[in-house]
Amino acid sequence: MKKVDLSETRAFNPLGMKNFVLHESEFFKIINFNIAAGRIFPVHAHDLDGQVSIHVVEGSGAFLGDNDAVIPAKTGDILVSDIREPHGVRADTDMRILVTIAPPI
Amino acid sequence: MKKVDLSETRAFNPLGMKNFVLHESEFFKIINFNIAAGRIFPVHAHDLDGQVSIHVVEGSGAFLGDNDAVIPAKTGDILVSDIREPHGVRADTDMRILVTIAPPI
Repeated sequence: MKKVDLSETRAFNPLGMKNFVLHESEFFKIINFNIAAGRIFPVHAHDLDGQVSIHVVEGSGAFLGDNDAVIPAKTGDILVSDIREPHGVRADTDMRILVTIAPPI
Repeated sequence: MKKVDLSETRAFNPLGMKNFVLHESEFFKIINFNIAAGRIFPVHAHDLDGQVSIHVVEGSGAFLGDNDAVIPAKTGDILVSDIREPHGVRADTDMRILVTIAPPI
């Protein structure tokens, strides 16, 4: 068993994004990304089997997808996407997301 | 892509626990458990490979483990446990947890 405390990784870089790998195993990887207001986690995809969940734990903005898709995102929203489906995040405020990737990449 | 909104499953049962399966795929299962103040998600384990993350999204209490282990748990805390390691949760206030299980069981 291992406990991590999200309050310990609450750090922002006004010029972009900070990320903290909270856990990695053969089963999943958990990363906290903190995105400064006005910044974007660019839309990307990997040609691999698997899924990712993106949980907004603070702030608001949008989930981004293929063909300029924009899905409003607020604290408490969770997006689930295939890893091979394009996905990204736009931060309208300072925004913290918890990303779980299974299997880990 | 699929979005779920945790504010839509904020329901408690004063006599115990409510649970909402938010997502299930071959890669992981995501469940929101809402545990009423004073109630316990009993310590349990399964003889299977895999891990579970337990993310406290509201309230406080404790993560429970083997040999009467008690680990304080507050909003923003995440416990990662092997599925075969005994794990449970005690709610001191109304408490919401987000559980991700990979591979799904």
